[in-house]
Amino acid sequence: VTALRAISVAEFFSKNRHLLGFDAPQRALVTAVKEAVDNALDACEDAGILPEIAVEVRETGDDVFRVAVEDNGPGIVVDEVARIFAKLLYGSKFHQLRQSRGQQGIGISAAGLYAQLTTGKPMRIVTRTGRESDAWELLVSIDTSHDRPDVHEKKKRDWDVEHGTRVELELEGRWNEGPGSVLRYLQLTALTNPHASLRLTAPDGTSHVFERTTSVLPLSPVAIRPHPRGVELGRLIAMLKDTEQKHLAGFLHAEFSRIGRITALRVIDRAGRGLTARSYPRRVAKRQAAALHRALGHVRVQAPRSDCIAPLGEKSILASLREHVAAQHYFATCRPPAVYRGNPFAVEVGVAYGPSRDASRDLTLPDREDPVLVLRFANRVPLVFQSGACAITRAIVHTNWRGYGLAQAKGALPAGPAVILVHIASVWVPYTSESKQAIAHYPELAHEIELALRDIGRQLRARVLRDDRVLLERKRRAHIQTYLPHVSAAIGSILHQSPKEEAETLRLLRSALERPSA
Amino acid sequence: VTALRAISVAEFFSKNRHLLGFDAPQRALVTAVKEAVDNALDACEDAGILPEIAVEVRETGDDVFRVAVEDNGPGIVVDEVARIFAKLLYGSKFHQLRQSRGQQGIGISAAGLYAQLTTGKPMRIVTRTGRESDAWELLVSIDTSHDRPDVHEKKKRDWDVEHGTRVELELEGRWNEGPGSVLRYLQLTALTNPHASLRLTAPDGTSHVFERTTSVLPLSPVAIRPHPRGVELGRLIAMLKDTEQKHLAGFLHAEFSRIGRITALRVIDRAGRGLTARSYPRRVAKRQAAALHRALGHVRVQAPRSDCIAPLGEKSILASLREHVAAQHYFATCRPPAVYRGNPFAVEVGVAYGPSRDASRDLTLPDREDPVLVLRFANRVPLVFQSGACAITRAIVHTNWRGYGLAQAKGALPAGPAVILVHIASVWVPYTSESKQAIAHYPELAHEIELALRDIGRQLRARVLRDDRVLLERKRRAHIQTYLPHVSAAIGSILHQSPKEEAETLRLLRSALERPSA
Repeated sequence: VTALRAISVAEFFSKNRHLLGFDAPQRALVTAVKEAVDNALDACEDAGILPEIAVEVRETGDDVFRVAVEDNGPGIVVDEVARIFAKLLYGSKFHQLRQSRGQQGIGISAAGLYAQLTTGKPMRIVTRTGRESDAWELLVSIDTSHDRPDVHEKKKRDWDVEHGTRVELELEGRWNEGPGSVLRYLQLTALTNPHASLRLTAPDGTSHVFERTTSVLPLSPVAIRPHPRGVELGRLIAMLKDTEQKHLAGFLHAEFSRIGRITALRVIDRAGRGLTARSYPRRVAKRQAAALHRALGHVRVQAPRSDCIAPLGEKSILASLREHVAAQHYFATCRPPAVYRGNPFAVEVGVAYGPSRDASRDLTLPDREDPVLVLRFANRVPLVFQSGACAITRAIVHTNWRGYGLAQAKGALPAGPAVILVHIASVWVPYTSESKQAIAHYPELAHEIELALRDIGRQLRARVLRDDRVLLERKRRAHIQTYLPHVSAAIGSILHQSPKEEAETLRLLRSALERPSA
Repeated sequence: VTALRAISVAEFFSKNRHLLGFDAPQRALVTAVKEAVDNALDACEDAGILPEIAVEVRETGDDVFRVAVEDNGPGIVVDEVARIFAKLLYGSKFHQLRQSRGQQGIGISAAGLYAQLTTGKPMRIVTRTGRESDAWELLVSIDTSHDRPDVHEKKKRDWDVEHGTRVELELEGRWNEGPGSVLRYLQLTALTNPHASLRLTAPDGTSHVFERTTSVLPLSPVAIRPHPRGVELGRLIAMLKDTEQKHLAGFLHAEFSRIGRITALRVIDRAGRGLTARSYPRRVAKRQAAALHRALGHVRVQAPRSDCIAPLGEKSILASLREHVAAQHYFATCRPPAVYRGNPFAVEVGVAYGPSRDASRDLTLPDREDPVLVLRFANRVPLVFQSGACAITRAIVHTNWRGYGLAQAKGALPAGPAVILVHIASVWVPYTSESKQAIAHYPELAHEIELALRDIGRQLRARVLRDDRVLLERKRRAHIQTYLPHVSAAIGSILHQSPKEEAETLRLLRSALERPSA
């Protein structure tokens, strides 16, 4: 019998690396780039810097690649480097309610863990926090049995970058350029991050550059306290235990969003069970907490503040779709913020529709018989794998697109020359796994996605129906063009008309028939 | 700016409880039962005890249920109770290569975490290790910020059970009896665990009993060392560092399966780079380790031992399908053990086919036009959720069932009156998330599943074709029965036959036409 013992987080994820997005080599390469770029974008935006990010991928052996991601962000204080890059479950974003790309404190360390698992090599970090500071270079890996960073080397160095961070790792991977590729990930990142400049140097030496199309940074989201709607009893109990407030009324007011002093009193009143405004939060018994929890669920509170999230907005979605997708028509719709389990979120949808011959864009529309192209995003990050497991895909499949003029088989995506973009902005995105590629099926989320899809569906229907009428009309006219001469010739021959009379008949027929249909 | 800090495992999973299978209330209830029953079965089998497990579910409030699972297992040493039930990532199964239901050290503590999150109540454990020992009762919960158990109460008590464990938790849930229900989970558990007696007391007081159909315990799997095929470089480096062996040859022989002394020398020879049989493992440089890793991938080694896994076997699959599924025909096939990433596994498939009117079984076949019923199992545990994300479902969809006589739309499950059971037995099952409901897409696994499906497909085809011929023949005869009298009457009337002559014609025609078709 093997002894019972604790399992380190790093050991757990080494054995379960597919949970982190590192199963197939192609996906591993994309995931590593994604984790580094997501961090770089977060860091730049938090510091109010327009992001400039360079990604280089080089093949250094059979199925082995060296990935380097360099940003112009604020740099990292040298003492934090090892833990940020070589400790799982470490970060600043987990404990705050505020939209950001990273949220788990796992991503970049997971990439490093996979690199060391497949090539045995540590990660190299170069970082500098400003002109007056030194640039540092560190080689770090994870000590998996003890869940802590191993620093192999740490030295000052010259670096001709004023501030920023460069991450390098060497890992097993596979390079391709299809839908689940590094290039596609960057194309889609450019689509929802028009304020970022991205450059990719591919293994064959070619460069792909996505220049920023706006110099306006997205509004920086504000950290909020939990919204009372949907907060769980267990969380409420933990909050009661952890608070520094001395009175229950003050606790409710201070620790939750949207609870003013009057609402706080109303909640306490409704809860009953001997609770008063001056009850000491830490002494609230479980039974009382349960009553408080029920009262929180019943008292009317305002919808959450919307400045904790930074949706793209209709204008930006339309501009980005026009920039990156060749189509005839563009639509966008944004839902107002909603809440699931106390977490505010907002859903936005964009659609590009109608085939276009313009080949200068990154993305082209599918053919009329093929499934529409679905682009999924969460907090501006494209989700490029596990589409089938995602609440977004499911909501699209569950929407009746035949009602909106698109063909759709039962239980399938609609078909047609269209791109459907769905973006979820939230202070906490519930991913189906640590690899953050698909969104879990929370009913509140699914409902909002469906409402947004229906709204865009109605916009689309008007256009599809008009296009269908135009198309029918064109077909009718083409038929007339083809057959009219034969008809007039036949009439001419029956009536023994002269060629001149025949031409006149043809003209008359044409003008009669080519009037637009009613 | 929020400070950087470590995130506790319990905090991470509290926020991400959907990763553990605790998202929707219905699923949460099933998952809680499943984690407790899986543990109970593992404990009984490891101790060589025929399992007797009682599950009680009682509704104690609006959408609140008390779940109790009691087993006749060996009981738990009282000092380990708190950590086993109230610490995530703690257990005996993670660090050994041996088939078991649990493998992560997460499951039952996750159920407790969800219970305390939704009802604020701790878990109650009663356990006794034998007639001479005291029975203990403990109330435990998880201190989420510190990742450690909180023991609220610990006392000796009377318990009229000789040895065993009883777990009780109270959680938010929803009761139903459809496909994703506690009852269905237990029905399917009975199917692959014919040596276990299971009893469910439902919230309405009704009992469902699944008596064991065999008193033979499955062979107890043996823990093995990793198989050299597919071991990753990172793991090899870690093994070199951790070994107590003083020589490289001894290391290879002692730490891996299927490497004898001669194979060890061959691997070292092939690796080159100055490595010898007497090289000191801890001093092997990364470059040398990489060469060793390549050599391990090239040298011929035997397939893994098969006693580290305990597949069901064809006989048991056929017996279980006959016991639980009403059908006309039953098939089974078992693949020999294969390896992915050094982990041995085996795939088994069973099929029940052909509608039956017998309504006494747990499971009935779908109609001819409906998708077949897929039953997925890993290490004898039924997987009841997330079918769409599972490598088993994908392999079934990717198999061309039209070639085997079943209807199948493109990209869909085949249709017809059939149940397809797939069981994967492995020393380590790569689940797509901590909730262990779907199997990740490792190519080696997918390939073996597909081979097994093709084998069963060929068995099925012979039967379906024969059935189709029989069906056609029956139709032909029915037609003859219907039309022959009219034909003979017409002949009679044309030839002016007497009624007697007409009857004779009919008899002759019938005997000529009713001979079976060639």
